[in-house]
Amino acid sequence: MARCIVPLEAGTDFSLANLPYGVIEPGGLGPRPAVAIGDYALDLRALVLDGVLTADGARALASERGTLDEFIALEPSAWASVRAALVALLSPGSPLERDGALGKYLHRRDAVRMRLPCAIGDYTDFYSSLEHARNVGTMFRGATNALMPNWTCMPIGYHGRASSVVVSGGADPRRPCGQLPPGDASAAPSFGASAQMDYELELGFIIGGRENPLGSAEPVATAERRVFGCVLVNDWSARDIQRWEYVPLGPFGSKNFCTTISPWVVPLAALEDARRALPRRLPAGSASGQRSTAAAGDGDDGGEDGGEDGDDDESSILPYLRLGAAARARASLSIELEVALSRANWPAEAVVCRGNARALYWSVAQQIAHHTVTGCNLRAGDLLATGTISGAIPESAGCLLERTWRGERPLPMPDGSARAFLLDGDTVTMRGAAVLADGTRIGFGECVGTVMPAQLPSEGVTGG
Amino acid sequence: MARCIVPLEAGTDFSLANLPYGVIEPGGLGPRPAVAIGDYALDLRALVLDGVLTADGARALASERGTLDEFIALEPSAWASVRAALVALLSPGSPLERDGALGKYLHRRDAVRMRLPCAIGDYTDFYSSLEHARNVGTMFRGATNALMPNWTCMPIGYHGRASSVVVSGGADPRRPCGQLPPGDASAAPSFGASAQMDYELELGFIIGGRENPLGSAEPVATAERRVFGCVLVNDWSARDIQRWEYVPLGPFGSKNFCTTISPWVVPLAALEDARRALPRRLPAGSASGQRSTAAAGDGDDGGEDGGEDGDDDESSILPYLRLGAAARARASLSIELEVALSRANWPAEAVVCRGNARALYWSVAQQIAHHTVTGCNLRAGDLLATGTISGAIPESAGCLLERTWRGERPLPMPDGSARAFLLDGDTVTMRGAAVLADGTRIGFGECVGTVMPAQLPSEGVTGG
Repeated sequence: MARCIVPLEAGTDFSLANLPYGVIEPGGLGPRPAVAIGDYALDLRALVLDGVLTADGARALASERGTLDEFIALEPSAWASVRAALVALLSPGSPLERDGALGKYLHRRDAVRMRLPCAIGDYTDFYSSLEHARNVGTMFRGATNALMPNWTCMPIGYHGRASSVVVSGGADPRRPCGQLPPGDASAAPSFGASAQMDYELELGFIIGGRENPLGSAEPVATAERRVFGCVLVNDWSARDIQRWEYVPLGPFGSKNFCTTISPWVVPLAALEDARRALPRRLPAGSASGQRSTAAAGDGDDGGEDGGEDGDDDESSILPYLRLGAAARARASLSIELEVALSRANWPAEAVVCRGNARALYWSVAQQIAHHTVTGCNLRAGDLLATGTISGAIPESAGCLLERTWRGERPLPMPDGSARAFLLDGDTVTMRGAAVLADGTRIGFGECVGTVMPAQLPSEGVTGG
Repeated sequence: MARCIVPLEAGTDFSLANLPYGVIEPGGLGPRPAVAIGDYALDLRALVLDGVLTADGARALASERGTLDEFIALEPSAWASVRAALVALLSPGSPLERDGALGKYLHRRDAVRMRLPCAIGDYTDFYSSLEHARNVGTMFRGATNALMPNWTCMPIGYHGRASSVVVSGGADPRRPCGQLPPGDASAAPSFGASAQMDYELELGFIIGGRENPLGSAEPVATAERRVFGCVLVNDWSARDIQRWEYVPLGPFGSKNFCTTISPWVVPLAALEDARRALPRRLPAGSASGQRSTAAAGDGDDGGEDGGEDGDDDESSILPYLRLGAAARARASLSIELEVALSRANWPAEAVVCRGNARALYWSVAQQIAHHTVTGCNLRAGDLLATGTISGAIPESAGCLLERTWRGERPLPMPDGSARAFLLDGDTVTMRGAAVLADGTRIGFGECVGTVMPAQLPSEGVTGG
């Protein structure tokens, strides 16, 4: 691990190899861009205003708005120059070390409030985990018809709600009220609080760079230039409301009440050594979604499996989604993920999921190429999430719907209770880290939220 | 019609009774809020800066950004005070008339460029026309199963794409390329330009006022306070791409390439005399969607039909969607709508749709109540569209998919050609106006776009 003038604990998520961006609000100061380093946040606005950070593009970090919006909208070359300058500033021999001025720019991370890193313009949620799609499809249509015919042909996605994206720690999700599905004996739904509140473990990509003009596509070969960085995403869901509302236009109120993202945006550049091969393609229209176990690759076993048998692996997908052998060999990101449930009075948390983002079937370049193929413009600050990330074994299922199989197999909790779905007061903590060959962790920090009880509408609020 | 110091032609869309808001960009000046009056746009920014327009809330019309964002975010009381002040300023005896200063603030509407009235934060598209849902359902599932069981229970909606919402005249839609459905003999889709490009005639509501906090609902009884005003919406669609992609998460690339809105936002206050009764409710879970012809109400026949037989009409819907008899009697807006196709070399345009917004089954108050019932926050500047508005007769179908019944019954055009779906170079013009009992027109102006030819990706853009 490269030496750093900020003291780092062994095994830190935030070494010099990471340098994720966030927006901090230190006590008494306005919001400002920062990078996380060890237990600290480095104030980038102050570094720019003091003339210490002068790299190309750095001025955007001192904008009036106090967010990363302007910086994210720059080109990748600006991100690279600022990243290189930050590494130099935090390495032995930097002006910050010589002047003894470092402390002026550091805030303890546990003492600052985090804000959304940028204004989220549009939020798109994909459905890119084969195992997730297969699990959900099996529940509703049986194993032999688990996948829709289009699933293997495109990264299925839908538009989510941008206004209700919140930063971890900034707001907790409230259990939603809404229409619950009719029982067997009735054609009419009932109204009430969701009894099937769930988390969804996802990875999110913050879009940056120059907007593609309306009507023009981003080619898959260069699409990654539009990725500023990655966050963890908890796309909170109400399964009962979802089941009743989603036909034919997709999920709506069951998802738009809250989506939580982790506060630190890990630059794509920090994940270079976490790249692995994309899983092999299935035949077009595969309905079972079964692929050979050799290529399943749920854990991180060194990147030897899957997707490296030549270009013909992509013959089943249309050219605009083909990566080519070289890009395909590094299109997945090996990021270890886990989800834990906890409550204040529990002796320990319960880890309910251990998975890895490399299990994703579609890469972010393919998602961007598909998102823009009809001409949709992606703007800096847009959020693209992967959809729930599930692996091949039950322990790697990324939501309770799958983990407890519609609630039929509740999970035992440390206090002797069991969970089919989330209860009020349950805290969901998602964690992620790319663990490199030398043991360096490129960590994402935590994405946390606690379920608040439903607020039933008071009597008399209707006009009737 | 009230007298106005700006000369008005008989039958103008923009009398003192209307005063719709827009953002103009006159030659040599930056963007600024305006109201349309006759053939002119009245520069509100200049009126505020000169101290002529001083009503409560007027300062927000002189913001740096040059949009309506800040004004829209005020409370309805501010909108009312500014509206009253504008009526006074444009009426005989106003300071503008006495000083002879009026001309300084007027720009000819045909000489100014229009901008989006506000930053669209989130765009939601509903599916609130019974006839549209029934037509589309009949095509795909037959007449007896036309409606999904949830349709009569809630205003079905989905999240659309905000980045690709453009103002009429600001950008034209480009025919999208994408995945086209597999033919009968193949499981694999093909790639190409959509052959089924379509318009969708919709009404849009610009949300304003104070944001409801995340996790709290807007009660249906007060939901209209969140409506700043109305626009026409053309939700351009690619039917072939849509058919293949939309299961199970809804339309995506088939809709997100362009959505056009009319530039002038008609205040809800201007539509008071256009209010009519909402159509009668169907039984919960009705699959055929048939209702008595007496209540169909496609045209504007004086508001005597439908929905006025007491509160029990709403027993089939959940309380959070019930308007009560008094509100229900005025929950629909009678706005005459038409769609015309034209080309430069045609002798005349072809009017392909004549309909009325009062045919909509769900009101905007019900849409807002449903949108927020799970706790979703609506922000000022959000756009809620109704979905395609179709009436009971073929001539009132609001899109070509319905009008030509999947293209099976092409429409004759003035040059002797026929249209199943749109061709490159076709101009689609939507118009709307509430026509009051005394003949006054509360007009929406036009929502126009011309189909640009597809741009096929060049060779070599993929990495393979």
